[in-house]
Amino acid sequence: MFKKLGVVALSGALVFSGLSLSTTDAAKPDYAGKGKENGNNGKAENVIYMIPDGFSANYAANYRVYKGEEAIWDDHLEGMFTTYSANSDITDSAAAGTAMATGSKTNNGVVGLDPKGNELKTILEAAEEDGRSSGLVATSTITHATPASFAAHVEDRNDETEIARQLVASDVDVMLGGGKNKFLPEAQGEHQLNLLEQAKEQDFEFVETRDELMNISDLDVEDGDRLLGLFAEEALAPELLREDTEEPSLSEMTETAIDVLEEDKDGFFLVVEGSQIDWAGHDNDAAWAMSDTAAFEEAVEKAFEFAREDGKTLVVVAGDHDTGGMTTGTSGSMELNANILKNVTATGDQMAAQLNGDRSNISEVVEAHTGLRLAEQEIQSIQEADDASFAINTVISERALVGWTSTNHTGADIPLYVYGPQSHKFAGFHDNTDLPKMIAEAMKLK
Amino acid sequence: MFKKLGVVALSGALVFSGLSLSTTDAAKPDYAGKGKENGNNGKAENVIYMIPDGFSANYAANYRVYKGEEAIWDDHLEGMFTTYSANSDITDSAAAGTAMATGSKTNNGVVGLDPKGNELKTILEAAEEDGRSSGLVATSTITHATPASFAAHVEDRNDETEIARQLVASDVDVMLGGGKNKFLPEAQGEHQLNLLEQAKEQDFEFVETRDELMNISDLDVEDGDRLLGLFAEEALAPELLREDTEEPSLSEMTETAIDVLEEDKDGFFLVVEGSQIDWAGHDNDAAWAMSDTAAFEEAVEKAFEFAREDGKTLVVVAGDHDTGGMTTGTSGSMELNANILKNVTATGDQMAAQLNGDRSNISEVVEAHTGLRLAEQEIQSIQEADDASFAINTVISERALVGWTSTNHTGADIPLYVYGPQSHKFAGFHDNTDLPKMIAEAMKLK
Repeated sequence: MFKKLGVVALSGALVFSGLSLSTTDAAKPDYAGKGKENGNNGKAENVIYMIPDGFSANYAANYRVYKGEEAIWDDHLEGMFTTYSANSDITDSAAAGTAMATGSKTNNGVVGLDPKGNELKTILEAAEEDGRSSGLVATSTITHATPASFAAHVEDRNDETEIARQLVASDVDVMLGGGKNKFLPEAQGEHQLNLLEQAKEQDFEFVETRDELMNISDLDVEDGDRLLGLFAEEALAPELLREDTEEPSLSEMTETAIDVLEEDKDGFFLVVEGSQIDWAGHDNDAAWAMSDTAAFEEAVEKAFEFAREDGKTLVVVAGDHDTGGMTTGTSGSMELNANILKNVTATGDQMAAQLNGDRSNISEVVEAHTGLRLAEQEIQSIQEADDASFAINTVISERALVGWTSTNHTGADIPLYVYGPQSHKFAGFHDNTDLPKMIAEAMKLK
Repeated sequence: MFKKLGVVALSGALVFSGLSLSTTDAAKPDYAGKGKENGNNGKAENVIYMIPDGFSANYAANYRVYKGEEAIWDDHLEGMFTTYSANSDITDSAAAGTAMATGSKTNNGVVGLDPKGNELKTILEAAEEDGRSSGLVATSTITHATPASFAAHVEDRNDETEIARQLVASDVDVMLGGGKNKFLPEAQGEHQLNLLEQAKEQDFEFVETRDELMNISDLDVEDGDRLLGLFAEEALAPELLREDTEEPSLSEMTETAIDVLEEDKDGFFLVVEGSQIDWAGHDNDAAWAMSDTAAFEEAVEKAFEFAREDGKTLVVVAGDHDTGGMTTGTSGSMELNANILKNVTATGDQMAAQLNGDRSNISEVVEAHTGLRLAEQEIQSIQEADDASFAINTVISERALVGWTSTNHTGADIPLYVYGPQSHKFAGFHDNTDLPKMIAEAMKLK
């Protein structure tokens, strides 16, 4: 169970016995109340579009148990939406990102193009045309499907080197994430471009470490200053491992992006992806999923803080699809134990990498990273598994009573959370293609 | 994939290429549009509280695939709510029904009492005190936990004979469902009461078959007329088998209950439960779950039709918890196949009952009732299973790409659909205890 945050929406005389209203937790910022005030009909000058990749309603419910209280977004639930793609019942992140960026369905694997290959204008591009600055933040390569869908147009999401060329050629002002290799001549094949050099020539300040990011000079997007931060050759580290790196957190990248972009008096459009919740879902790695959700929540908190102060910033939080068919409870149990995942300090992949050749140290490795003393049967299931990492994740998920039914995406409807001006206009049941249309209306894009 | 019903909520100039609005399906009643008109601030004179037991957002998503188009409730999504009970992370139907009826959490198994045993007033009882008539409709025994939670108060939900006594002694005007045995002297133990005779003395017209229900005389609740219909000794048949019985459908019971109750000029409060969606979930029987959801949807359609004509009727559709940890997709597939469940003509239990002693006819029985030709490996899984029924359900679910992670309830958040006056006041994230409070406000119960 978990603690309720904020105030309950209900008031007025209540008539029958046993009615009890939850109490406000005075120690917590009251985003619920401020959100209501903030839900005015003013124009959304700024938009922060936050996408926890792979996050569905069951991630939200398990995360509440993990955290021990409501998440910052819970009280801002406005509705749910469907996610199918143009050619599949179940979407991939490219088709989902394209739908959420352009308002059009496309085929799985396609970025920013319709199924016939026609280029689709993205809401980030429309915001740029309307005079706003823009940014992309992710914990994957910045050229990965979801961020790419807002500023690139390619037939194949795997063509990340082409996406890198398009990103550098785009009007995006701030890009922070992983994927440095995609920008180097070695990866650029026949093009032999050094996109990092090209970016610097195009007024991008380039940073590669958390320290450099935290100490950037004052940038003025109004004067054409731009910021490119690529903190790893490929993806950034899972949140569970980040402290051993020189990488910034998603929250630090988000805060910095806002700091730079808010200089634009015409407003900004920022996309922030919690990229690895999805990867954890594919691995059925509940601890990685929850810890990366926590890192994403910290970023949402930065966005909400800015929006609360600013009053003209719309924050939309929406996963692109469910990954793994996660359920909140499993195996016939009437308990939920996702809180035990807080003790886990490594991904299943990492624990598997620490096993010796005959896997005789399963018990020690898993206990060292989870605090769990495994039963003989659990050890045996890992011993005998083709994939030790997956088997470790399965054991941990069973202990946490987190269920999984797939190693791929599913067709679950996805919850939509909105904070800020016109947030109430997002109420109800939608399709993923409705999201950019509603955001465009809130921005009064013409 | 599925067809969209009704109109899209968005309008106004849209700015970027590729935007396409879904079209209205002129052949369908436009509940979406009417719902908006209906979402006024008037008092809810009548309430129809419809509870699909065990139905969560993944049932909604799979049901859309099964039906081939949106369900009648989809466009009326207003929010989601949590369901934990006073003593468990995961609720049973008694604690959930009590929360949804009284606004208070109680322990699993307890009906209409708080954890200390104090009686809780239900919203149905409050509506009765306010001068309204009331009714209970279910496909379980009418004495089962969910309907009982609105008009009975017992420590143990299994004490259905005590619940029967309380129901007959209550002010409820219309009761339609199963459970005739609970009302007979044989079941009443030391009491040796014939509650059916007692009910008749208390102005209840008593009916036992669909024909009798369809041909009841004009009843006037204003004059004290009441209606008791018990159409089976225990639960009614699953919808898959109903045509071999003399039982009415849930939709016919709902329509009749509305016909009788609408005579009350002071309004009415009607509870309708689709009871067996939950039982199907416990059995991981996807075809039973979907066909009973279809039967429930027909009942919701009757309620929406009445509410649309009436204009003063609030319809709330809310499951009490998820059952089975259903997911929309499974096993790594990017397809959804729940539509194949439409070909299934029997529950797993029934198919198992038709197997011969050595189960040598698995292939014939399953094909006869599903149209599926089983692979050798599927036949073997059923052949070797301790529980042939569950194994059949597992095979069918895998074919339908419907995932399950439990044979019990889970802690998934539940979607809330609302139609009629003040429906917009239900928007957002709630707890199950908020539902009767919001309904009481819409009814302006004092």
